[in-house]
Amino acid sequence: MNTRFAKTPEPPYYVVVFASQRAGADEDYDATAAAMFRLAQDQPGFLGAESARDASGFGITVVYFADEAAIKAWKENAQHLAAQKLGRERWYARYTVKVAKVERAYSGP
Amino acid sequence: MNTRFAKTPEPPYYVVVFASQRAGADEDYDATAAAMFRLAQDQPGFLGAESARDASGFGITVVYFADEAAIKAWKENAQHLAAQKLGRERWYARYTVKVAKVERAYSGP
Repeated sequence: MNTRFAKTPEPPYYVVVFASQRAGADEDYDATAAAMFRLAQDQPGFLGAESARDASGFGITVVYFADEAAIKAWKENAQHLAAQKLGRERWYARYTVKVAKVERAYSGP
Repeated sequence: MNTRFAKTPEPPYYVVVFASQRAGADEDYDATAAAMFRLAQDQPGFLGAESARDASGFGITVVYFADEAAIKAWKENAQHLAAQKLGRERWYARYTVKVAKVERAYSGP
């Protein structure tokens, strides 16, 4: 990506806010995370994603989708289901997911 | 904080997603960011916040509020307005703000 910022359309659309604490180092994680990002981009209704994780292993990823149907389809994608299982079992000490409808957006400076 | 995760109530509530790229090092930034976090906690309708920034200076902060009125009041807080001005003029090369209504939430593992 040229930029870390997603190019989102005018609202309304949806955002999935994924906050997570990594359980520890795992060399498979980065490759899977990159593969999931590429896979998500091919999903109908995927609008973009942004992610930041600090040195302590706490991270926030936000993924933008056109609608709830696109979120559901991505959650149930077979390769993504396998990654979710590894996430629960090995990668994350804790995570939270929030699904929200974006009503307005702006940027700066 | 004991944990980096916000303790949010059952939906619905609002989330402000703030993605930002820092322009460079500035020793005033960390102190102001910490002061703004303390100040936000005293705002009526503030529900919690989560934040992660990586070594490249790209970060995502999500702030949870009970309703739109609480978001508006925080945006117009005098001390916060002064910090926003410094953010635009000195701290951020770019930022985006998205205001969204949280419809559902879950956590794991």
